[in-house]
Order: sequence, then structure tokens, then C-alpha cells
Amino acid sequence: MRVGWIGLGAMGWPMAKNLKEAGHEVLVHNRTEAKARAHAEAYGTRAVPLEAVAEAEAIFSCLPTSEEVAAVVEALLPHLREGTLWIDCTSGEPEKSRAIAERLSGRGVAFLDAPVSGGTAGAEAGTLAVMVGGDPAAFERARPLLEAVGRRVVHVGPVGAGHAVKAVNNTLLAANLWAAAEGLLALVKEGVPAGLALEVLNASSGRSFATEELIPNRVLDRSFPLTFKLGLLAKDVRIGARVVEGAGVPSPLFHLVRELYQLAARELGEEADHVEAVKVVEGWAGEAIR
Amino acid sequence: MRVGWIGLGAMGWPMAKNLKEAGHEVLVHNRTEAKARAHAEAYGTRAVPLEAVAEAEAIFSCLPTSEEVAAVVEALLPHLREGTLWIDCTSGEPEKSRAIAERLSGRGVAFLDAPVSGGTAGAEAGTLAVMVGGDPAAFERARPLLEAVGRRVVHVGPVGAGHAVKAVNNTLLAANLWAAAEGLLALVKEGVPAGLALEVLNASSGRSFATEELIPNRVLDRSFPLTFKLGLLAKDVRIGARVVEGAGVPSPLFHLVRELYQLAARELGEEADHVEAVKVVEGWAGEAIR
Amino acid sequence: MRVGWIGLGAMGWPMAKNLKEAGHEVLVHNRTEAKARAHAEAYGTRAVPLEAVAEAEAIFSCLPTSEEVAAVVEALLPHLREGTLWIDCTSGEPEKSRAIAERLSGRGVAFLDAPVSGGTAGAEAGTLAVMVGGDPAAFERARPLLEAVGRRVVHVGPVGAGHAVKAVNNTLLAANLWAAAEGLLALVKEGVPAGLALEVLNASSGRSFATEELIPNRVLDRSFPLTFKLGLLAKDVRIGARVVEGAGVPSPLFHLVRELYQLAARELGEEADHVEAVKVVEGWAGEAIR
Amino acid sequence: MRVGWIGLGAMGWPMAKNLKEAGHEVLVHNRTEAKARAHAEAYGTRAVPLEAVAEAEAIFSCLPTSEEVAAVVEALLPHLREGTLWIDCTSGEPEKSRAIAERLSGRGVAFLDAPVSGGTAGAEAGTLAVMVGGDPAAFERARPLLEAVGRRVVHVGPVGAGHAVKAVNNTLLAANLWAAAEGLLALVKEGVPAGLALEVLNASSGRSFATEELIPNRVLDRSFPLTFKLGLLAKDVRIGARVVEGAGVPSPLFHLVRELYQLAARELGEEADHVEAVKVVEGWAGEAIR
Repeated sequence: MRVGWIGLGAMGWPMAKNLKEAGHEVLVHNRTEAKARAHAEAYGTRAVPLEAVAEAEAIFSCLPTSEEVAAVVEALLPHLREGTLWIDCTSGEPEKSRAIAERLSGRGVAFLDAPVSGGTAGAEAGTLAVMVGGDPAAFERARPLLEAVGRRVVHVGPVGAGHAVKAVNNTLLAANLWAAAEGLLALVKEGVPAGLALEVLNASSGRSFATEELIPNRVLDRSFPLTFKLGLLAKDVRIGARVVEGAGVPSPLFHLVRELYQLAARELGEEADHVEAVKVVEGWAGEAIR
Repeated sequence: MRVGWIGLGAMGWPMAKNLKEAGHEVLVHNRTEAKARAHAEAYGTRAVPLEAVAEAEAIFSCLPTSEEVAAVVEALLPHLREGTLWIDCTSGEPEKSRAIAERLSGRGVAFLDAPVSGGTAGAEAGTLAVMVGGDPAAFERARPLLEAVGRRVVHVGPVGAGHAVKAVNNTLLAANLWAAAEGLLALVKEGVPAGLALEVLNASSGRSFATEELIPNRVLDRSFPLTFKLGLLAKDVRIGARVVEGAGVPSPLFHLVRELYQLAARELGEEADHVEAVKVVEGWAGEAIR
Repeated sequence: MRVGWIGLGAMGWPMAKNLKEAGHEVLVHNRTEAKARAHAEAYGTRAVPLEAVAEAEAIFSCLPTSEEVAAVVEALLPHLREGTLWIDCTSGEPEKSRAIAERLSGRGVAFLDAPVSGGTAGAEAGTLAVMVGGDPAAFERARPLLEAVGRRVVHVGPVGAGHAVKAVNNTLLAANLWAAAEGLLALVKEGVPAGLALEVLNASSGRSFATEELIPNRVLDRSFPLTFKLGLLAKDVRIGARVVEGAGVPSPLFHLVRELYQLAARELGEEADHVEAVKVVEGWAGEAIR
Repeated sequence: MRVGWIGLGAMGWPMAKNLKEAGHEVLVHNRTEAKARAHAEAYGTRAVPLEAVAEAEAIFSCLPTSEEVAAVVEALLPHLREGTLWIDCTSGEPEKSRAIAERLSGRGVAFLDAPVSGGTAGAEAGTLAVMVGGDPAAFERARPLLEAVGRRVVHVGPVGAGHAVKAVNNTLLAANLWAAAEGLLALVKEGVPAGLALEVLNASSGRSFATEELIPNRVLDRSFPLTFKLGLLAKDVRIGARVVEGAGVPSPLFHLVRELYQLAARELGEEADHVEAVKVVEGWAGEAIR
């Protein structure tokens, strides 16, 4: 199939490569043109100007926020052909996705929100989890393409549902990480080494992805590799809070987590890695998780 | 070894049996005497009055709170012999344990706090995780006994450290469960079935014991089996909040969780199962996790 | 001056009367027409269909939310004449007001957001505080009209600023009231009569409008008169949280207050009086403020 | 009457002077002896060693926390005479006060907790509010002395009630101040000068001691005079949270405020003035209240 790909960031770059390697013709576009040319040279995709992406049967967008997606959709709108499929892998906002879907629907273009989870490692390996919102028939058309980039591809509901699930997932990650930081710092200050505490927590009911993966592999050794920016997690948590608000669920915990990550992004900068958020609690505690 | 066991509740009953089956002579005592006699008949342990427990070389206590432990220690104090080992499996309070340890130390009795995790199923199977605080030499003496009731026995620090780790574990469980409830209810209201959402979360970074075990097996099917009382989790969360307070760690999240479980225990009663806490959020949302 | 008035609710009814009594010709419109006719009969105003309001030089709107204002503006838009002044006394949303202002500006109509504070008593007496956002020249034109309905008329900033200040005011009210309820209930349970506690607080640094006015006059005597619906306060608090979000101020307290009033409105119903929110804390505490 | 006074800090110094000026014989004691001698020289009181304070008929203590009060009581206990009255003006803890009262009661000494409100200005002028807990008969004996240091002297309940009311008062102050800081910073960032916003709030329902006194007189002019240390307010808020906990009132707001002031004291130091807490929010917002 002829596939368009807009956005060659840390996630988009390997995902577009995987589509090409699955046998598709891939037209890549990036705001910084040189990046698209480099991708073309490296993997045999084709670097094209934005309007040329409209020639594809299916168009992927993989951008920082729904704002950029909306802008790109507006720019391409006059060029799009009826029957085209638009698949948005951005970690976007349900409400904005619904507005974008409506815009595209006026041109006979179906929209799916299809954010992914699994990090750059999962993107490289093609083992991402993909949570998809949109029309079931459109989902069935997109499935072979999505299975080229991810291993667990799940249709979760109508347009916006993919983005909602992604935002909730990341808010839970943020909540579980912050709670673990508070608890572990207290234990360290009471004389319990964090490694021992984690050994027990992870054999017990307090365990989470944060205690099993993030803290042992990134905090205890103080490596804090940059894999996902704090500014982006703070944005996802804002979307998560919007989702619970929109649904009318009183959610004191989601909202506290929202504010904690806003202030963490203020204190540490948007460019820090998301796991560095624990450094805010470390600063308050006057101790490190170790 | 001659071992004393005080407290034959849902956890203590099978743990005392496992000690007996590991070849020890076990003297059991329970406030309701008939329960001790039933245990003796069923497993060949020996039901004794409280003072007779002092004849044991090692004494286990497994009671609702540190208050009851302190009362039993006071009552037995005149009868205790130097060199006895006291092992407290209660989910108790670090501060109170330190006070109890000091009382016992005046009689030449070593104290270990050794709370367990793994529920009644783990207690039956002898596969509990045991987190132990206290003197390392005393821990080594206790280890064979603890390995008769648990599979993962970890010495985490000085007296009180076991109780601190247990309280933090349970507060994390409480936090992760409540956060998941808020997020899932919003998704359900937006048209995403909770089972699908959990499938994605559990393949992603938002996962926790709450999303992997509790909600799929107890909430989705509305079974809510009574395995651990909400009133006891609310107590553990109070202890968890005391631990972070005592350590001087500013902890907005732990304290919000504390208050949420206090109000849940008020609304649903102390006798409800701990997982029923999600029903408070369900009530606010006007929807069920399903 | 010929003045239009849209919305004859608890606040709008006496405000329109005061405009008439200040010597203006007042065209009143209300969705339920009978209400407008009753106003005309009682005070000598003129009940008119919506389009006829466009004949006024200045148009007031006083509606439940910005949604209704936007709808009315759309409906009237084709009829509006250049140079008209639109004054919106609704407790609305800054963002939506900016959008409305832009729509009106396309027709040469200036928009001011001018929410009021002081309750129905202040509306009757013409002693309301009025916080106004918008162009300074438009404000000067509106001032004589606003001084007919309020005593303290303050221009606080550009379009939306009036609504922002109103929302912040009401969120502070909500925060101060809830905090007072928590503290007073604890004191009552410790044997301190609430009236005595208030006497001390109100002579000290803990005092607020909530402790000086609302609790003594509405809670202690259990009268809870319906003067301002809980559902409307919950809405204002949502707007307040939007304001701090939009401004990029990490605000854990505003967001907790937001969630507490959402759940209060769920538990007590939107039609309860706003001061009844304390009943939620009373329910949790198992005690009344008395 | 012969009166003893222990503790000549910022509050104790002028209060002891006022007692002397009301015609009492005042024996002053201070840990730093030179301070007591200076007081004696300035006002004609008598500087004495600790034990000599036991000769007084009524003994005042005015110390940083209940810990110091308990230590002084233990030290004086062997010297105290039956029938002596002990009046503690410390901002102390209800629980500890009950323990101290019991110790003193064994020697026939009555204890009143009598914390004050009104700042150093009120202490100088003798216009403090005094909230008193303890036996009504003891209160009647103390009343003439208390009226020499304060204008509003209220008996609020049994021993501990005075401290509980003081702690609640200060927690409300802390809550109202923080909420105002969040809201005002958002308004400033939206283009509303803080002074204008305060003018409106203080004519409306959002007003509190924080918006009427503290922010206009100490924040807008950036003077932040040191009148009450942040570390002491953080301690009072901890006591306030203990009070609601002890009373069994689920209190999400009190507990969030508690954690916010703990982190503020960490960030700004215990020696900062309490009103400087707003600087934490200013730092998060990247803007000042002005």
C-alpha cells in the first residue's frame, strides 16, 4: 500500500522504517526537511513535500500534540482524496481528535486515533501496544498497517477513545511513580535501603511498572536516561485530567497528580526525562532514593 | 523448637499450622479460647492460657494492631525468660514497635517486627513475603521459623523497619487502586469497556498490582470477596502517612490517599473488603467499572 | 438610554428593575415569556421578543453560563447595530467570553464581561460589586449603567478578566468554606461548641467570609436558605480551575477544591444551596457543625 | 498576685510586661538568663532561676512547642506547691497538653492551655485573643490574669481545647493564604493587577484575613516583615492535621495544606516569615503577586 508518514521524531522515525520493511511504499514528510531526506537514504522511503502526502491511501501523523495534527490536517485538506484513511499516532486529546475527525469526514476521509505505548525500544522492535479509537470498519482497514508497527493492537472505542486510554495510562504511570517516590524516600530516611524495599514491594501488592521497571533501572543507578520528556508526560497528565473532567468523574487523585507534574516540569524543565520527577520529592525530603 | 503463637485470625490460623507441620511444638493462645482448642484438635498444636506461652523459646504475635500487641506484652512481661525471641507478624506501627522492643529488651527478650504480605492464600500455602525489622543476630535465629511460614523472607532494617515497609506497600496499593478507579470510570463513561482498557494498561506503563490482579478478578465480575477488611487497609494507610511524616518527607499524595480511605471506610463501613473502596468513586461517577 | 435585558433570574430580575428605576427605558426578554411580562407589569419595563432587544443601545445578558450567552449572541447577531454595547453579567468563562467578544466585534459591537457579587440581597439593594473586563472606552460608556445596579464597579482588565476575577473569588469562597468545615467539625468532636470556636476564629487570623457570615447565619441554625445553587458554585469552581490552568500556575489547592465541589454536587444535587456542601464533611465526620 | 513567667520570646516579653503593669509581682525566667535580667531592668520584674518560679501562685509558660513545656514541668515538678495554677500560652498540642495536665494534677496543680492570637502587635497592646482549655473553676481563677494580656478571653472547652482551636485557626489562615496565592497569581498572569483583584475580592465573598490584611500589607509591597516564622506555622498546621485526625474527620484539604507548608518550610527555611510561603507558588508560576 502507498502510505504517508508525517513526523519523524524519536517514535515516528523507527515506526516509518518498520512500515517500509513490511513491504509498503512510504512517503515521509518532516518539518525539518533534512530529516526526511536522511530517512529516505537510510531506508528507501521517499521524502516528499507536505501536499504530496495526499497521494497516499493511508496517512500517519506522529506529532508532539493535537495542535500540530490539526494544523497539518488544515494544510492538507484541499488535497485529500475521498476514501483516504488518516491514522494519528500522536498522544493527543480526545476532544480535539473528535473535531479533527469531523473536519476530515467532510472530505470523505476516515480518522483513527492510534497512540502507542512501549517507548523508543518498542518502536524500534515493532512491539508497541497500539490503542485505537474510531469507526470499526476503518480500524479493520488499518489493522495490517498497525500490526507492522506494534504487537498488541486493540480497538478500544469511538474516535478519541485511543487518546483517552493513552492519557489515562500515562496518568496512572505518573501517579504510581510519585507515590512510590514518597514512600521509598521515607523508608530510606528510616534506614531501609531502597533496593531492599523494592524487592519486598515487588513481591507484594504495592508493585507497579514504576517500582518494577523505572526505579530499579533508572533511579537507583542515577542514570535517568532521556527516553520520554517530562514536558510531554506533564502534557499527557493534563489530558488525563481533562478526560476525567469531561466524563464527570470527581477525581481528587488525578488532579493532584496533574498539579504535581506541572510543578515538576516548572522546576526541572520540560526537557528533563519524565522519571526525573522523583527529584522534586528528593529535594523536599533532603535525601535520595538509593 | 517450642514456639508460642498468639492470635489465630485469618492469617494466624494457617501460619501456626505451617509452623507445626514444619516440625515445631506449637503452643497456641487466642482471646476466644474455643478457637485455640479447635486449632489444637485440627493440627495437633497445644491450646494454652496466656502465661503458659512464656514457656516457649520463640513467641509469635499476630494481632489486629500494635495496641493489642503492647497489651499482651505487658501481661506476659513478668513471665518472660531471658533469651526468648518475640516475633510480631501484626501490621503494626514502627513507633509503637520501638517502644515494645524497649520494654522487652529490659527483660532480655529480643523483638522483631515481621509483617507479612500475600493474603490468606499465601498464608495457607506458606508462600508469604515477610519483611523483618530488628537486630541482625535475632533475625538469623528467627529465619528458620519465618521460612516455615513464608517464601521470601527479607531483613529490611532496624526495629520498626518491617512495619514501615508493610505500611508503605499497602499505601501504594491503596494509591494505585484509587487512581485506577478514577481513570477507568472516565474511560467507561467515554465508551471504553473496562476490560479492554485494562488489557491495554496491563501491556503498558500504567500497570500495577491493582490493574493486573484486583480489578480484573474482583471488580469486573462484581465478586468483591472479603479477603482484607477496608478498615484494616485504612489503618495501614494511616500508618503509612505516619511513616512519611515521621521521616519528614512532604507527601501530598500519601496524605490525600489517607483521607480518601478514611472517608471510604466511613461510607462503606470498616467491615467491607478493601477493594470495595472503588465503589466510592463509582458512586461519585454514577457509573460502574465494567 | 434604551437598554435591553436578557435573563430575568434571581439576580437579573432586581437588576433590570434598578436600571428602570434609574431612569432608563428597559426592554426585557426571558426564555419563559410570562416572566418578562410580569416584570413589565410590575416595574414598567417592556417585554419584547429576542430580536427586538437589538433596538437597544446597550444590551445586558444575565444567564446561567457562557453557553447560553453564546447562543443568544448568535441568534441576535444578524440584528445587531454597529456601536451597540454588550454587557454580560453572567458568571461566565474567560475563554468563551473572548470568543464571544470576537464574534461581536465583527459587527462593531463592544463586549464587556461584568459579573457581579453580593447575592440577591445586593441585587435588590443595588449594592453589588461589579468586576468588569474589556476595552477601557467601552467601560467608561457602561459605567453609568453599571452604577445603577452596583456600588463598587471596578475595571479589572481586558475581556475575560471580569469572569476570571469572579471565578477566583468564588473558588476562594469554596476553599475557605470547606477548610472551615473540616476544622470546626474536629473541634465540635473534641468538645468545643462551634459558636465559641467561631467567636475566636473571627477575632483571629483564621477568619474569612465563610466563618464570619455563612456558617454563623446559615449553618449553626441549620437554615441553609437557598440563595445560590451548589451546582452553580461547582461550575464557578470549575472555571476557577480553568483560569489557573490557563495561566500556567501549578495549583494543587484549587484543583482539590474543584474535585470536592464536584463530588458534593453529585452527592447533594445541583439544586442544593452552596453552603450545604458542608453537609458532605458532616456526613464523613458523623457529626454536625453546631 | 505573685506570678511566674517562663519564656521571654517575641510574644512572652511584652505579655510579661503587661502583667507587671497590671499590678502583679512577676518572676521571670528565660533559658538565656541575660534576657530575663534585661526584662527585670526594663520593667521592674524579677529575674529568677527556674526553681524559684515555683514560689508563684500562678505560672505562665510561653515556649516554642509542647516539648519544652513538658521538660520545664518535669524540672519544676518536685518544687511545685498544691493549689498552684499553670497557664500555658504556647501554641502546643492538645494530646501533649492532656499528658502534662495529668502530671501536674498529681501534684495538685491545675493546668490551662491558653494560646493567644494577635501577633506581637497584639501582645504589646494587650489586645490578644486568648482561647482557653481546662477546668471552668481554674479558668475563673485565671481570668483576671488573662485579661491583663488579652482583650478577648474565651473558655472553649476541656484541657487541650485551647490548643486545638489555635491549631485550627492557624491551619485556616494557612489554607486561605495559599488558595489566595494560587488565584491571584493566575489573575496577574491574565493581566489583572493584584491590587485591583484584592479590591474586588475584599468587597465580595472570597475575602479572608489573608486577602484583607496579609497580602495587601506584606506581599504587594514585598516587605514580608518577620512577625511569625514559617517553621512555627508549619508546626501549627501539623498540629491542626493531628486534631482533625484525632477527631476522625476525613479532611483532604487540611492534609494537603499540611504538606504544602512542610515543603514550603523545606524550600524557604524555617526562619522565613510565614507569609513568604506565597513565594513557593510564585516560583512555580514564574510570576509575582503585584
